[in-house]
Amino acid sequence: MKVSTLYAPTLREIPSEAEIISHQLMLKAGMIRKAAPGVYNYLPLAWRTLKKIIQICREEMDAKGGQELMMPIIQPAELWKETGRWTVYGDEMFRLKDRHSRDFCLGPTHEEIITSLVRADVQSYRQLPLMLYQIQDKFRDEIRPRFGLMRGREFIMKDLYSFDKDEEGLEINYWKMYDAYCKIFERCGLSYRPVEADSGAIGGSGSIEFMVIAKSGEAGIAYCTACDYAANVEQAELKAIEVPAADVKELALVNTPNCRTMAEVAEFLGFEPEHAIKTLAYITDKGPILALVRGDHEVNEIKLKNTLDCLFLAMADDIVVREQMGSEAGYIGPIGIKEAIIVADHTVMNMVNTECGGNKQDFHFINVNPVRDFKPTIVADIRQIKEGDPCPHCGNPVATARGIEVGQIFKLQTKYSKALNAVFVDETGIEKPIVMGCYGVGVSRTMAASIEQNNDKDGIIWPAAIAPYHVVIVPVNSKDNRQIELAESLYNQLTAAGVEAAFDDRDERPGVKFKDADLIGYPLRITIGAKTLEDNLLECKIRRTGEVRYLKLEGCISVIKDMLLEL
Amino acid sequence: MKVSTLYAPTLREIPSEAEIISHQLMLKAGMIRKAAPGVYNYLPLAWRTLKKIIQICREEMDAKGGQELMMPIIQPAELWKETGRWTVYGDEMFRLKDRHSRDFCLGPTHEEIITSLVRADVQSYRQLPLMLYQIQDKFRDEIRPRFGLMRGREFIMKDLYSFDKDEEGLEINYWKMYDAYCKIFERCGLSYRPVEADSGAIGGSGSIEFMVIAKSGEAGIAYCTACDYAANVEQAELKAIEVPAADVKELALVNTPNCRTMAEVAEFLGFEPEHAIKTLAYITDKGPILALVRGDHEVNEIKLKNTLDCLFLAMADDIVVREQMGSEAGYIGPIGIKEAIIVADHTVMNMVNTECGGNKQDFHFINVNPVRDFKPTIVADIRQIKEGDPCPHCGNPVATARGIEVGQIFKLQTKYSKALNAVFVDETGIEKPIVMGCYGVGVSRTMAASIEQNNDKDGIIWPAAIAPYHVVIVPVNSKDNRQIELAESLYNQLTAAGVEAAFDDRDERPGVKFKDADLIGYPLRITIGAKTLEDNLLECKIRRTGEVRYLKLEGCISVIKDMLLEL
Repeated sequence: MKVSTLYAPTLREIPSEAEIISHQLMLKAGMIRKAAPGVYNYLPLAWRTLKKIIQICREEMDAKGGQELMMPIIQPAELWKETGRWTVYGDEMFRLKDRHSRDFCLGPTHEEIITSLVRADVQSYRQLPLMLYQIQDKFRDEIRPRFGLMRGREFIMKDLYSFDKDEEGLEINYWKMYDAYCKIFERCGLSYRPVEADSGAIGGSGSIEFMVIAKSGEAGIAYCTACDYAANVEQAELKAIEVPAADVKELALVNTPNCRTMAEVAEFLGFEPEHAIKTLAYITDKGPILALVRGDHEVNEIKLKNTLDCLFLAMADDIVVREQMGSEAGYIGPIGIKEAIIVADHTVMNMVNTECGGNKQDFHFINVNPVRDFKPTIVADIRQIKEGDPCPHCGNPVATARGIEVGQIFKLQTKYSKALNAVFVDETGIEKPIVMGCYGVGVSRTMAASIEQNNDKDGIIWPAAIAPYHVVIVPVNSKDNRQIELAESLYNQLTAAGVEAAFDDRDERPGVKFKDADLIGYPLRITIGAKTLEDNLLECKIRRTGEVRYLKLEGCISVIKDMLLEL
Repeated sequence: MKVSTLYAPTLREIPSEAEIISHQLMLKAGMIRKAAPGVYNYLPLAWRTLKKIIQICREEMDAKGGQELMMPIIQPAELWKETGRWTVYGDEMFRLKDRHSRDFCLGPTHEEIITSLVRADVQSYRQLPLMLYQIQDKFRDEIRPRFGLMRGREFIMKDLYSFDKDEEGLEINYWKMYDAYCKIFERCGLSYRPVEADSGAIGGSGSIEFMVIAKSGEAGIAYCTACDYAANVEQAELKAIEVPAADVKELALVNTPNCRTMAEVAEFLGFEPEHAIKTLAYITDKGPILALVRGDHEVNEIKLKNTLDCLFLAMADDIVVREQMGSEAGYIGPIGIKEAIIVADHTVMNMVNTECGGNKQDFHFINVNPVRDFKPTIVADIRQIKEGDPCPHCGNPVATARGIEVGQIFKLQTKYSKALNAVFVDETGIEKPIVMGCYGVGVSRTMAASIEQNNDKDGIIWPAAIAPYHVVIVPVNSKDNRQIELAESLYNQLTAAGVEAAFDDRDERPGVKFKDADLIGYPLRITIGAKTLEDNLLECKIRRTGEVRYLKLEGCISVIKDMLLEL
């Protein structure tokens, strides 16, 4: 590609709405343009990179026996009503009516469609297992689309669905996909980590997220500093903390005037927050809830929701606390509460002679011994992991990091096959629901995540595998025919050798060309100047390291190809 | 691909709604499944073929300097309001609102989006010419989706847009695309014809359609039997027919009781229909219209609409004829009509001593001499071409055929750049609207058209270039290990040699396997039987011709590759 004709209109001013670096750099480098909030045009450079990510996904899916197909974007409401998700999806689903007033949505995901396809055409165990996938646009009407391609409303996903006759089959395909996903993100040149995840709205029994590690990541990850355990902080398990045995003292209600916060009570009564119980009041679709954690811990609301199996969870306001629970905000506690499901973190149940709210203004209990003094409805792991907490696998301290979720795999089990009656007849003639898994890669998100992870003050640093072009050739003086001729010849040779080269043939100052080369992030820049030309050398600069190598003209093509393999 | 695992669920019963052969065969061969009316799932076989057509389009667009990008499916209403097409598109456009009640449509085409992209980023003639394209899903809410992929509501198109600084630039790119389109349809192995076309709702000054010739085609084509002229019958030009000179007689109004049709009047007055004028009354957004053609000719309403430059045209009813035009249905004519724009076909103006309606019940004029007796508002070519009419280029008779439109190229000129203010500054500093063209290939339609053109009673006959697989290998006896081993080895060798092979490893009777092979339409079927195995031969059957060749095992891979090049 000659840069003079390349449609990559670079920008000097970045719109202020671009808050994160990938969004800023993609706008600046002429890779994307906004068509509407959360809806983007992918310009040629971005589209080249996306096609490469798509091709990597395709090859890895095919390698595992996946068969590619293509499902529609507009999906009839009837199917979504069968699984109940027509309602559950709420405002996040784009909905429309056709000219005959029939309801449709724009597919935010394709479980309903694929399951309805398979239920019509698969009847026997002989037709299983089956792995079907597509690489397709998806739609979610985010309430606040932002961060460029990171949280868009129209985006590209690879989604594969596995169909098995039993649990063992699912287990095999699930780990095949795990392996394929590792290969995909490795081949894309990304530093990533698979982490245990919550299976959330999709449903099912097990899930792993693939996180690209980046400071700007929206997700928290906890990982062990000793073993290979890693999990989304939403999900990371915690064992109950043991507490040394001690003599049990008598429960007492003490006056704590104007002490509403944990810090105030702790100071007034002279204990450390980790010695007390922290009580939070929520309202849910299962009724009012008290959640108890140790004073220095935080409640993990995802775990709490999963523990309760509730759809809705929000902090209770003062009126609920007073009128329904018969308590007082700031003084709430589990002892003598009027009405609430009590969910205690398992560490709480090990505490001895601890403190908690007295359920009346200006009073707290001391010498609380949970097992003796109140009866929790549920005891479970409901707290948020934090730096230094023990790894649930080996006990060593965990560290935390930020990550961008680029892929997720789910064991759906029979959630959709039961809802949509996708059944097969097994070897013994018995009809059973098909056992399913689903596996997604955020293709456009992977491009953005790659930029979040690979950039510097000058622009993007592409891993060679997904760079729009591998090499840019820059003649320093566009008036010097010998430079231009060599550049052109090199361009033709590289192209013939399968290297994707851009030739900056613009009549611009070298500074402009170098700046654009850094911004667009070509892995290699080959500069042709008067001096190197004289010496029959090429100046070859590695974008990532800034290292400059001088290559002999003779045999340079194979040297360049070798260099690219390392990038 | 092993056929035992291939997701191509064949059907025995074809749903009655499948009216045409491509629809029937794609359902039967397990290539497509309906998700909603006009909305289809492309199963693996279909998707493989579509990917090949897409790749052919991509290569030919790239070869002409096209740059691929990807525009969004959901498009903001504002842009469509700027060009006025938010209204013009009517019910055919899928519309939706996002959660903030902002109006969007699902792109039926992308002129608005691409022009708005280019207007923001292109300012100078130095950035032109530019050819940008995408291969993308498009949406049209057809009132009656039918014919499978032929008239769907969600379908795949390749669309390229050219941007030039002047007419000459457009001319160059238009013919580049003409050339690319010929290459695309040739490479797809289709028998096609480029025909002059109407530029219709898209607008602009010139247009050529690419038609795949097929009896089931929805479009009529007129082509010269001597020169290379061809046109859509909607568009085909006709010159005025000359009439021998004759003495002009005196106009007279004669009684023609109960003669309402051309045939009745002709018989009653004793002349041939081609001697008389046929008058049709229409209502349009420009007011009431009389259209005049020779008695044996038909009005071409597309030409009439274009001549009048009107948006709406429909036959006038009796009340309009009576009350607005002051005439009588069945007796309408141009002489003394009360109110109507008179559009006369140019042949009419050459007629001498002809007949027409008398504008009152039971009366016709005779000895009408158009130039003398009435004053048409417009004289133009408004009639429909028919078999035997003279070619407008060489005068030889034209023949007619049916075709399926698979591509169309348009000179848009400045229609969209003016509406959207997409301007550039030329070499002399003057601001001008960009000169545009647009060029579309119906990708999913091309697949269907290929089947319409290439099939027999047993199934599909794929041209090798777009066949989902090139070869199917069928061992006759799936219990015979030697047959299976040879089949497997051949399958591996062919795959390694880049031939896309399917290996029918199913435990089925040979008849079932042969039937499926014919239905799916693999260009070559290699049968491995006991006898040929003994003789070290392969039976190789060409799907299209039925011809069977026996190949020596040794060196068979290269023979098979050569055979495929001819298919």
